[in-house]
Amino acid sequence: MSSRSVEELFAGQIRGYTLSQALHLDPAVYQLELERIWRTNWLFAAHTAELRRAGDRTVFDIGDDSALVVRGEDGKLRAFHNVCRHRGSRLVDDTIATFAAALPYAGAGGRPPDPFIRCPYHQWAYRLDGSLAACGGMDRMAGFNTREHGLCPVECAEVGGLVFVRFERPPSPSGSPDIYELGQPLLPQRLEKAKVAYSQSYLVGAGWKVVWENNRECWHCHVGHPEYIRSHFDTANTASADVQQQMAARTATMVEALSGLCAGDVYDGGGLATFPSPGRAWSVHRTPLVEGFATESLDGQPVAPLMGEYKSFGVGVLRLRALPNFWCHASADHAVTTRLAPAGLDRTEVVVTWLVDEGAVEDRDYSLERLLPVWERTSEQDWQLCERNQRGIRSSGYRPGPLSDRHEANVAAFHNWYREAMAGG
Amino acid sequence: MSSRSVEELFAGQIRGYTLSQALHLDPAVYQLELERIWRTNWLFAAHTAELRRAGDRTVFDIGDDSALVVRGEDGKLRAFHNVCRHRGSRLVDDTIATFAAALPYAGAGGRPPDPFIRCPYHQWAYRLDGSLAACGGMDRMAGFNTREHGLCPVECAEVGGLVFVRFERPPSPSGSPDIYELGQPLLPQRLEKAKVAYSQSYLVGAGWKVVWENNRECWHCHVGHPEYIRSHFDTANTASADVQQQMAARTATMVEALSGLCAGDVYDGGGLATFPSPGRAWSVHRTPLVEGFATESLDGQPVAPLMGEYKSFGVGVLRLRALPNFWCHASADHAVTTRLAPAGLDRTEVVVTWLVDEGAVEDRDYSLERLLPVWERTSEQDWQLCERNQRGIRSSGYRPGPLSDRHEANVAAFHNWYREAMAGG
Amino acid sequence: MSSRSVEELFAGQIRGYTLSQALHLDPAVYQLELERIWRTNWLFAAHTAELRRAGDRTVFDIGDDSALVVRGEDGKLRAFHNVCRHRGSRLVDDTIATFAAALPYAGAGGRPPDPFIRCPYHQWAYRLDGSLAACGGMDRMAGFNTREHGLCPVECAEVGGLVFVRFERPPSPSGSPDIYELGQPLLPQRLEKAKVAYSQSYLVGAGWKVVWENNRECWHCHVGHPEYIRSHFDTANTASADVQQQMAARTATMVEALSGLCAGDVYDGGGLATFPSPGRAWSVHRTPLVEGFATESLDGQPVAPLMGEYKSFGVGVLRLRALPNFWCHASADHAVTTRLAPAGLDRTEVVVTWLVDEGAVEDRDYSLERLLPVWERTSEQDWQLCERNQRGIRSSGYRPGPLSDRHEANVAAFHNWYREAMAGG
Repeated sequence: MSSRSVEELFAGQIRGYTLSQALHLDPAVYQLELERIWRTNWLFAAHTAELRRAGDRTVFDIGDDSALVVRGEDGKLRAFHNVCRHRGSRLVDDTIATFAAALPYAGAGGRPPDPFIRCPYHQWAYRLDGSLAACGGMDRMAGFNTREHGLCPVECAEVGGLVFVRFERPPSPSGSPDIYELGQPLLPQRLEKAKVAYSQSYLVGAGWKVVWENNRECWHCHVGHPEYIRSHFDTANTASADVQQQMAARTATMVEALSGLCAGDVYDGGGLATFPSPGRAWSVHRTPLVEGFATESLDGQPVAPLMGEYKSFGVGVLRLRALPNFWCHASADHAVTTRLAPAGLDRTEVVVTWLVDEGAVEDRDYSLERLLPVWERTSEQDWQLCERNQRGIRSSGYRPGPLSDRHEANVAAFHNWYREAMAGG
Repeated sequence: MSSRSVEELFAGQIRGYTLSQALHLDPAVYQLELERIWRTNWLFAAHTAELRRAGDRTVFDIGDDSALVVRGEDGKLRAFHNVCRHRGSRLVDDTIATFAAALPYAGAGGRPPDPFIRCPYHQWAYRLDGSLAACGGMDRMAGFNTREHGLCPVECAEVGGLVFVRFERPPSPSGSPDIYELGQPLLPQRLEKAKVAYSQSYLVGAGWKVVWENNRECWHCHVGHPEYIRSHFDTANTASADVQQQMAARTATMVEALSGLCAGDVYDGGGLATFPSPGRAWSVHRTPLVEGFATESLDGQPVAPLMGEYKSFGVGVLRLRALPNFWCHASADHAVTTRLAPAGLDRTEVVVTWLVDEGAVEDRDYSLERLLPVWERTSEQDWQLCERNQRGIRSSGYRPGPLSDRHEANVAAFHNWYREAMAGG
Repeated sequence: MSSRSVEELFAGQIRGYTLSQALHLDPAVYQLELERIWRTNWLFAAHTAELRRAGDRTVFDIGDDSALVVRGEDGKLRAFHNVCRHRGSRLVDDTIATFAAALPYAGAGGRPPDPFIRCPYHQWAYRLDGSLAACGGMDRMAGFNTREHGLCPVECAEVGGLVFVRFERPPSPSGSPDIYELGQPLLPQRLEKAKVAYSQSYLVGAGWKVVWENNRECWHCHVGHPEYIRSHFDTANTASADVQQQMAARTATMVEALSGLCAGDVYDGGGLATFPSPGRAWSVHRTPLVEGFATESLDGQPVAPLMGEYKSFGVGVLRLRALPNFWCHASADHAVTTRLAPAGLDRTEVVVTWLVDEGAVEDRDYSLERLLPVWERTSEQDWQLCERNQRGIRSSGYRPGPLSDRHEANVAAFHNWYREAMAGG
């Protein structure tokens, strides 16, 4: 699909209305999204918590591609295509028990990680930096150059306990802020000192854009997310004077609790925290919780020990989102990350992960029963709303509809970002 | 696919032979069928029995489209695309417990139906006539016209207890009789006073044309449908003098039993009841049952109380078929409807529904054990025959074969109707 | 795809490297493979053991096609498209209990096979030679010629207890040796006197070429097939002097044990038994087993009575492979056949079958527990290796890699055969 035809595709698109059916259902659009959005943006792949020791490794599959992320002997994370340079076998299978490796001291009693990446087919072996270490004697063949048969690299960035990969550099310098800038607002949460408490994967019957449109407004929260909305304001400028006063008070308390800690931008829950803007693929802010809520739990009570630099509850929630595949809500005592991967025009693979402080011990310091419900239910409610939306969009009776200027300005902002990204940047 | 290439497609087609492989397997043919046959014909969607009270609603899905059928405050049925005009969410999920609502007096004790159609995403609400009643204040936005955001209508016809929808009017006036003419022959059956006793859905591994070819001849009945053929003549001109005498006697008895009731055309079971003719998408006739059979049951004995205007058993069976998606066999005491929806080149969704008089009480006046067997077995036998036929047609060894002039004249008639419909009508 | 574009497809292909991604993933390549390789080559379909008596029949499905193989009254095997000439129904369903029929004397007590092939739809009946025997009186229709409505033939060859079919003759005379030449090396095994002991089917998530590449080298055996490699040398020129001596000794013993029996070419397990060469679609050779192994069993001990003409154990293993869909390892006491059928770009249907002498009685002369493990485990290990390989090949990180001149010369030979076959030759 040429740039010209992209323009044509958006030609009939009315600003402030939902996307045309073609943008949701045309296979050529999907291919262009893979090329212009999914290959050239940083994608959240994993948590530092899963990759502590030299030799620890994990895999992030996206479509037919697979990124293998490995901690080197030098402590650096690197990513490679998860494909052997000999016959092309996949190197590391889907599921690795990295959770155990992520536990503190697990290495002490357990087997240390393999210092090589070994192909299970013919035992070619690569060092943790991707260079070829063994190939069954094929290096004795005339013309065989060992240096030409290292693993194919994928860009990798580790920041604030989060691991991102990028399959290709964008063609033109992007206006997006450097991914490493994420580190500053994430600092007090210390996700790099967290451990994975639980992880849940979903195959959602809706395209990735429908999932983001759902994420970019909380109008549906008030009926659709009864558990979530207990602890959050998210009033979208519809707050009464009384509620406005509560928001102001809770914000003041939060700023005080954070005193001395790098806290990121503050959003009081009243208006809309505008995101995205064209060219800006990620943002972070901090929001107070409703009175009586120390964390995002069903009853407002803490569900785990304090994380990171926090000295007390009352620090609100750190909200982070990074297009096209990540968002996170981090409370004082736990964090929940959501990772997306497109799985076709109308399917999205989602992994939701709960993190707590690395020192917390299950059934002593926290229980899954109390930790999971808010985001497990909220996530599953969203997937159902998204699937219904996708089904309606497939109908010949679908017409682009108007977006609420009050509630859905960030859906329109997402469309603007999308349009610019599809135009090539 | 242009009209010209449709002609080319039929160019090699020999009259009196089965259809070419391309007409069964070419995806472009299937797309044209959706456009020229499935969008512009009346499609059976539901029974009046499922939609008694104002606010009762049901859904008929066909491919990606979904028709929402609703009874209005004024008692009229209307149909709409089952899609919200805001973000395009599906409005009503697949399965609604309308059967309870269809029971007499169910409304008295149960919750009355919702007088609105509410979108589960952002609570937009529509009146039962499809007009927008609430949109969360978006009507205060500049340029928002409430009248422009009602549900998109689909044509709807309620006749003789059957509900049909049509997604588009055909481009040229069809020569087909008005769908409301069905009411006259259906009158004595009083399907609008029936209730649904049972419903069974199937995903059949054969295209809709293969299913109709199967329906349009009863040659396969004599070995393939041992339960069905007990009660029916369906001799296709092969009857002995003795059987001819039986048919004449049973027809005379039937006409007498129907005396005073509007009875529709009579078919004695001897020759073939010719259907379809080009441009004529539906037909009805009445046929006597074999001596000893009061109804289509395994043992010939009644399985439920008399329906409608019938004063006695012996009224034979009212047979109705409406291309492209409906047929029905109605005995004195029960009726069985079959609804088709194409689900791809070689898949068809089928729903078979059994109806009895609305006053009949299960396990007092009828039992499913006695009501279901004949059409449950006959239907499932047909699906197996159709699936085998479809598999053979997919083979490179498939050659169009000759149709029997005696047994399969209506298969040839179906091909003629199909050819005309594909040519654009 | 024209011949010219086939050339283009191979233009970038480097000799001695794995195939390009397009050759594995392009749907047009797959269509051409079906046409140039799968339609015009002999395909292994069944064993003589399944088709003993006149009227015995079995079915080999390949894609949408289905070959019906039948033993005639004259003792000859014939194959036909498994499709009725009337409406195109499939004639014989997938699974027939032919195993019982294959047992000696089964015919004595059991029902003799039907002397007709009957269509389950309208009871058209064909004789075992494919000629039309009955069509419900349609032969009385004007212009109906019974001789024009026999079953459509498929070529069939029965040789050495193996049954092959061919859907089309190749366009030009192939340089491949006549399939009947297989009979000579197979002679002492007497597979036509065998019975089927067990059969297992798999749907492997890898394309047929990946499965053959895996079959064409045993480098992966040393780690990947611990059970298989116990009994086999397969050293690919890497044998030490000591092992070379063992091979020579075992080969001498084997040749002696075979004395007087036609034995085929001998391969000592040292170098590579070169196969295929362009135009040569099959080969056979005999290989000695490691000291202590009488047969391909876990412990080296016999697992069943001697087959065929063999007078003692120690006759090694007869290895046969026939492109594109068959290989077999036959020991002194049992044989294992593997049959492939492509099921899409990246799926292959595989059936593995174990045969023993027809006189052997289960649980008296052999047990499945001892008979199956070596090839059950070896097969399943291969499918897993193939599936990993296919996944890697789908990745954007896949690059054609070098083949080992020592271990993988037959993979390169397979690529040459493939290239020639695709060029139409």
